[in-house]
Amino acid sequence: MLSQRLRNAALRERIVTAEEAASWIEDGMTLGFSGFTAAGDVKVIPLALVERVKKIGKPFKVNVYTGASISAHIDGILAESGIVHRRLPYQSEKRMRAALNNGDVCYVDQHLSHTAELLRSGAIPPVDVALIEAVAITEEGHLIPSTSVGNTHIFVAQAKEVIVELNVAQPLALEGIHDIYDPGYQGHRQPIPLTQVGQRIGMTAIPVDPAKIRGIVITNQADVNSAIAPPDDETERMAQHLLNFLKDEVSAGRLGPNLAPLQSGVGSIANAVFAGFLNSDFSDLEIYSEVLQDSVFQLLDANKVKMASGCSFTLSPETHKHVMANLDKYRDKLVLRPQEISNNPGLIRRLGLIAINTALEVDIYGHVNSTHVLGTQMMNGIGGSGDFARNARLTFFCTKSYAKKGRISSIVPMCSHVDHTEHDVDIIVTEQGLADLRGLSPRERAKRIIENCAHPAYRPLLRAYYEEAVALGGHTPHVIEKAHSFHARYMQTGSMME
Amino acid sequence: MLSQRLRNAALRERIVTAEEAASWIEDGMTLGFSGFTAAGDVKVIPLALVERVKKIGKPFKVNVYTGASISAHIDGILAESGIVHRRLPYQSEKRMRAALNNGDVCYVDQHLSHTAELLRSGAIPPVDVALIEAVAITEEGHLIPSTSVGNTHIFVAQAKEVIVELNVAQPLALEGIHDIYDPGYQGHRQPIPLTQVGQRIGMTAIPVDPAKIRGIVITNQADVNSAIAPPDDETERMAQHLLNFLKDEVSAGRLGPNLAPLQSGVGSIANAVFAGFLNSDFSDLEIYSEVLQDSVFQLLDANKVKMASGCSFTLSPETHKHVMANLDKYRDKLVLRPQEISNNPGLIRRLGLIAINTALEVDIYGHVNSTHVLGTQMMNGIGGSGDFARNARLTFFCTKSYAKKGRISSIVPMCSHVDHTEHDVDIIVTEQGLADLRGLSPRERAKRIIENCAHPAYRPLLRAYYEEAVALGGHTPHVIEKAHSFHARYMQTGSMME
Repeated sequence: MLSQRLRNAALRERIVTAEEAASWIEDGMTLGFSGFTAAGDVKVIPLALVERVKKIGKPFKVNVYTGASISAHIDGILAESGIVHRRLPYQSEKRMRAALNNGDVCYVDQHLSHTAELLRSGAIPPVDVALIEAVAITEEGHLIPSTSVGNTHIFVAQAKEVIVELNVAQPLALEGIHDIYDPGYQGHRQPIPLTQVGQRIGMTAIPVDPAKIRGIVITNQADVNSAIAPPDDETERMAQHLLNFLKDEVSAGRLGPNLAPLQSGVGSIANAVFAGFLNSDFSDLEIYSEVLQDSVFQLLDANKVKMASGCSFTLSPETHKHVMANLDKYRDKLVLRPQEISNNPGLIRRLGLIAINTALEVDIYGHVNSTHVLGTQMMNGIGGSGDFARNARLTFFCTKSYAKKGRISSIVPMCSHVDHTEHDVDIIVTEQGLADLRGLSPRERAKRIIENCAHPAYRPLLRAYYEEAVALGGHTPHVIEKAHSFHARYMQTGSMME
Repeated sequence: MLSQRLRNAALRERIVTAEEAASWIEDGMTLGFSGFTAAGDVKVIPLALVERVKKIGKPFKVNVYTGASISAHIDGILAESGIVHRRLPYQSEKRMRAALNNGDVCYVDQHLSHTAELLRSGAIPPVDVALIEAVAITEEGHLIPSTSVGNTHIFVAQAKEVIVELNVAQPLALEGIHDIYDPGYQGHRQPIPLTQVGQRIGMTAIPVDPAKIRGIVITNQADVNSAIAPPDDETERMAQHLLNFLKDEVSAGRLGPNLAPLQSGVGSIANAVFAGFLNSDFSDLEIYSEVLQDSVFQLLDANKVKMASGCSFTLSPETHKHVMANLDKYRDKLVLRPQEISNNPGLIRRLGLIAINTALEVDIYGHVNSTHVLGTQMMNGIGGSGDFARNARLTFFCTKSYAKKGRISSIVPMCSHVDHTEHDVDIIVTEQGLADLRGLSPRERAKRIIENCAHPAYRPLLRAYYEEAVALGGHTPHVIEKAHSFHARYMQTGSMME
């Protein structure tokens, strides 16, 4: 059995315990973890490291780089233990969130396609040790990733040492799903040859010099993702607005009947939109996205989607079980790529994606805040939304028009933090309706966003702000001292409503 | 003589006056003008159109699309005449600026690489008539552009009709400088094959079905660009900070001795930086930029630069004369491309550019406002800065630390408008110093920007804001009701200083 998983006989001598592997990690090191969402992340060495540090009893800090978020369990324990100095490029865990919001962790919120480039160019500290989950190690010593690729290839390429968690709970049938392509150093590159969603341009394993593999820890733990909230009335209405818009675009001849490759962010809104496709007349769809969620497999099962490319599987426990047991059925319709390829600006533009992402807050001129509650508290991070929004053919941002039972309006006069500028946002969708902003000036956008997307209870306040601002003039009218009056009011009274 | 310029004999019958050509333009049409900066813009038909409309004496509106800005003379008269309904993707003229700031013109401020894509996908109204300056029309009826390419190829491809201004004042020797490559429709594209700054991947002429050429107007007027302000003490200090940083990057092994292809925005700061290269030890440099200014030719003359690619020449009258008279000398070192190629996200990342652009305002966390004075009044537009900043290997934004004799601080607590987010900005440069923000969390960035870049007179105010904000907490600390207090104070008292 192990010979199937660890095909290079010489490497068997490097099998160690998690504790021994953790003992090699020194204070001040930079670690590169496999994992994108809680898929394919390393599961035991980080915990062994935390235990080790507890015993040392003196200050110990490491930088932790990942693909995106990792399992809540691991990121949470890392945050609690206080051993993380710098964390990038994304997280979504409440204890890590608390640590970075109180300044204990230096968090660098990055476009997910950028991290590999920053490592190549030396813009961020290099990776000392890569901790990588694999389903197998080939005879050449190369690594077969598990349920994500993310930044794994670049961490392996750049690290001084690699420690592998060989996870026998991840099916060996994952071999062949991955497509590992490294574009090489900037200035010395050939064009990335991908022109079709399902095209394979690389290798099925991550190349590594076996001499760099310092240790191998055998593990046996499934990925742990939580179930995604099912669609509710409001997410279903958003999905319907979006699907009706796409139908109209097809009728107008601006999109073909099979649309264009779809990208969607993670979460309940994205899930509702994809559920909407399930019940639509669209067929032969393609997905070129970052995370492949449950809904992608429902669309594959229903023959609505013919090909799906991503950089990780983020599946509920039931779907995970179903997919892992039926990989041969999905094999020809799936590709997992490095996140610098799934999120590549040039490829997103070349393929002409339809990008659907979630906003935290949208202002009347179409700027989007994806990250900061009330401008200050980090929620998760920008993730890949910027890679897609800027470069897609059609860029949607979706949000419920209100939060906190109406005490917060998601449509505000001016965003308290801007992650996506007016230049990058095509269409806003709330449960109230849809605002197509393409080709509009800021004043035209404001009317459309307020009337189509804001909650009716907030429209009078937004109209009053806009009218007062227009009286002062300007291409993008604002009353600068009142631009964040909604936020200030919420902080004073607990509600943005007057 | 005309036979050299107009090589398709059948097209000679279509020579008309500017007045006749203008008579074909109808109320409600969308016009695509050649021109990027005041280079290669159409010079007589727009003026004839304004004259015609004056005589009609009834409401008449057109949409005007260009490459970027056009000559101040033309954009100004268009604005004054009140015939422009919608203007995109960029302008830099005071009367047009007034018209869009008071809401008379609907201005759509776009990334300069996006306009061609928006036309292909039908996201903005299609071009009815393309008005194009050319130096010659080939036997096949194809157009040899003059001093810019910009959006000319896409306007010609998408327009129902093309009217040519054949400008005999632009030298025929420009033929061969251009490299026209159209990537085609999204989803049906091959990779753009460019891997070297000077590589030619397309044609020297813009293809057009001669049947679409409705008229040809012979003109004889040079481009009219103003001289760029020479470096002053402060722009020279900025240039020195930037050059010292690049030297340090070379010493640290993060850049090679010839750096990486350079991009620079338009204006006096960019000019000073390039003048700095002239007196530096760097050699064999390459430029992959949007606008090629005077300084590029000084660097070519000094053998500091071996190859320069752009989408227009924006030259002072003297340099224009010198370059046009010596094109054969420069021919092998110059390429003019469509702006969707010069500014292409995929190519910018592939080549790994060093991007140097100008900020209007920077906040303590590294967001950049490139467009809006006090958050409301449009200055020019984002231009290509977003295309470059997001995708470059190293992204600099430069600004003097103050404006209006110290009454405005260019470093503020929170930008009043965000064009470039924290995710896209690597390095801030002012005459005070340089802040390298790579890999830093917001709190780390704030200290560096305040201490290295803000004017000393404003540092106490910025420190006080930051400290008050940190006491409230958050990943990006702010005192939300005071985030724009600098701007509000300026509007009340005429100074951001207390």
